[in-house]
Amino acid sequence: MAFKLDHVAVAIRDLDLAVDSFEKKLGLTCERVEVVPTEKAKVAFFDLGGAHLELVASTDASSSIARSIEKRGEGLHHICLEVENIDSALALAKVAGLPLVNETPVPGAGGSRVAFIHPKGLHGVLIELVEKPRKT
Amino acid sequence: MAFKLDHVAVAIRDLDLAVDSFEKKLGLTCERVEVVPTEKAKVAFFDLGGAHLELVASTDASSSIARSIEKRGEGLHHICLEVENIDSALALAKVAGLPLVNETPVPGAGGSRVAFIHPKGLHGVLIELVEKPRKT
Repeated sequence: MAFKLDHVAVAIRDLDLAVDSFEKKLGLTCERVEVVPTEKAKVAFFDLGGAHLELVASTDASSSIARSIEKRGEGLHHICLEVENIDSALALAKVAGLPLVNETPVPGAGGSRVAFIHPKGLHGVLIELVEKPRKT
Repeated sequence: MAFKLDHVAVAIRDLDLAVDSFEKKLGLTCERVEVVPTEKAKVAFFDLGGAHLELVASTDASSSIARSIEKRGEGLHHICLEVENIDSALALAKVAGLPLVNETPVPGAGGSRVAFIHPKGLHGVLIELVEKPRKT
């Protein structure tokens, strides 16, 4: 199966503060900010030559991002791999014995379908799979 | 300044085991394995459509990877951004008040020059800057 690194995500307490910090201190430019209701999160994207940096802040104390920050603080949170067909990718991951957070895809940012593989399956790395909407 | 995401690095205990796991369970193909003496590390690279996944294992108990695994276990460790000129990038980072792990570049994998920015400067994200060798 072919994977393309779509983005690397960072768990952030205060999104505005972090966007400002990555813009002013590192010189990146924020492309867009989006609320993702299914994740109870607000996200900001920066282009890094094709792949993106995604800053993710919680919009609700019960979100997985809020729990992650409580446990481990801010920092690298997950990587997202783009696949052609997320249903096939999930089926293959299941056959390979990978523990799935989402057995079926859920709506992600920008009209995409996403699913997470649990970090205990791959050396502590939380992996998001994404299938982008077809351009019509 | 223009940045390109070069790779995302994962701290790993046993490199052979992890390479096998990412190949068999996720279906990735390992491109190359390299020892990086300056980092006291052995690394494996997987192509993810331009950007790479780098698995990093320690070759010495005093390495920063060994200390990171001792503290936080295996998992996402740093992101690496490619820059045209690492000396200019470091000078700008210094002016912006970012705390540098390396004040001057050190030799990295594949004949590159690299330097790290401390995670306390950017919301817990350890950032490596890399300048690749010019192709002649």
